[in-house]
Amino acid sequence: MRTGIGIDVHAYDDAAPLWLGGLYWPDQPGLAGHSDGDAVIHAVCDALLSAAGLGDIGGRFGSDDPRFAGARSELFLGDTLEAVAGAGFGVVNVAVQVIGDRPRISERRSEIEALLGGRIGAPVSVAGTTSDHLGFTGRGEGVAVIATALLTRAS
Amino acid sequence: MRTGIGIDVHAYDDAAPLWLGGLYWPDQPGLAGHSDGDAVIHAVCDALLSAAGLGDIGGRFGSDDPRFAGARSELFLGDTLEAVAGAGFGVVNVAVQVIGDRPRISERRSEIEALLGGRIGAPVSVAGTTSDHLGFTGRGEGVAVIATALLTRAS
Amino acid sequence: MRTGIGIDVHAYDDAAPLWLGGLYWPDQPGLAGHSDGDAVIHAVCDALLSAAGLGDIGGRFGSDDPRFAGARSELFLGDTLEAVAGAGFGVVNVAVQVIGDRPRISERRSEIEALLGGRIGAPVSVAGTTSDHLGFTGRGEGVAVIATALLTRAS
Repeated sequence: MRTGIGIDVHAYDDAAPLWLGGLYWPDQPGLAGHSDGDAVIHAVCDALLSAAGLGDIGGRFGSDDPRFAGARSELFLGDTLEAVAGAGFGVVNVAVQVIGDRPRISERRSEIEALLGGRIGAPVSVAGTTSDHLGFTGRGEGVAVIATALLTRAS
Repeated sequence: MRTGIGIDVHAYDDAAPLWLGGLYWPDQPGLAGHSDGDAVIHAVCDALLSAAGLGDIGGRFGSDDPRFAGARSELFLGDTLEAVAGAGFGVVNVAVQVIGDRPRISERRSEIEALLGGRIGAPVSVAGTTSDHLGFTGRGEGVAVIATALLTRAS
Repeated sequence: MRTGIGIDVHAYDDAAPLWLGGLYWPDQPGLAGHSDGDAVIHAVCDALLSAAGLGDIGGRFGSDDPRFAGARSELFLGDTLEAVAGAGFGVVNVAVQVIGDRPRISERRSEIEALLGGRIGAPVSVAGTTSDHLGFTGRGEGVAVIATALLTRAS
């Protein structure tokens, strides 16, 4: 077994489309980012890479690499899953907590869980909370996501 | 096995009584909240629900639901434990980190651990730290709590 | 098995030498602290103590204790590992995420992982991220570190 942790933060960008948890959210302010800014997938990737001892997405998908400009984060997830499997690990489960005022995760929680759980092939839980008007998430400046992952040595 | 994570943030409210970790803290500024504002129990509940894939306390105990106005958070913990057991999981352990200047967790650490460990029926550890005068916890605006939980399939 | 979590935050102090992840980083602004301010080792210690139910480094190495003024944090790690082993636990792995603009963890990631992994006798992964110019880490005021640990009952 291995535990891993990943965190990602993105600022809101009203001019960008919102991609979060692998879903497109119409009529919602987006998140800034060199890629599509999907902080949920980024945190999940970092938790998986962290548990497997494979570095982080910043090192694998540099934010100054033009190949990843505007890239869908599912690309990062696919590469991460290949690397984790290639290192001999299977995913036991992934747990995600989103901190921010918008979007309201509860509205599409099961949709995100089904999408990411299907891609990862293991249970993925996604929860949302606010920070009671405190800090940058409480001021509506951005979203923070924290994820933990549990891996097992594939037999 | 399943890993889970939960985070909760509450602002100080000098006019409220302080409930934290299931304990009443006399002569301490309280935490704002629709319920009793017990950020430790809220983070623990979210970590347990997250590991079990059962959503989050925001979804189960809406902060605009009048039934929960001023509610003791132990009510939420009891319901959470029932839901986790009902989903076929046992609790292996829960670890809690409190970030904030007050109250000083160290003064009542073993009391909280005994109370929550007894309720949950598994080891609960509670630690405290400050954020070196940085961020909202460092400015004395509130408390942040992060918890991880480990569950196992009940046999 | 036991899960644990630890967080530590230190402000930059341009006049201090930088110790992070057990390494000395020349030509980099340091971190303030009663000890050497090594937020990576502090978070790792807190994650290990948390998983073992042994309190926190604040309780073990008080920041007002003159014996620890300027102390190298490896001292705390050594004591922590003894306490964890003494409580009957072995370390399965530790995962660390550093949030901050500097130093760039990627430059010395494998060096930190080798040093801490050797001391702990189990895999240690270290990742870095920024907070997209948000919050105190985004304003360049300090560094935040979060670590998770997985322990097992030593047989």
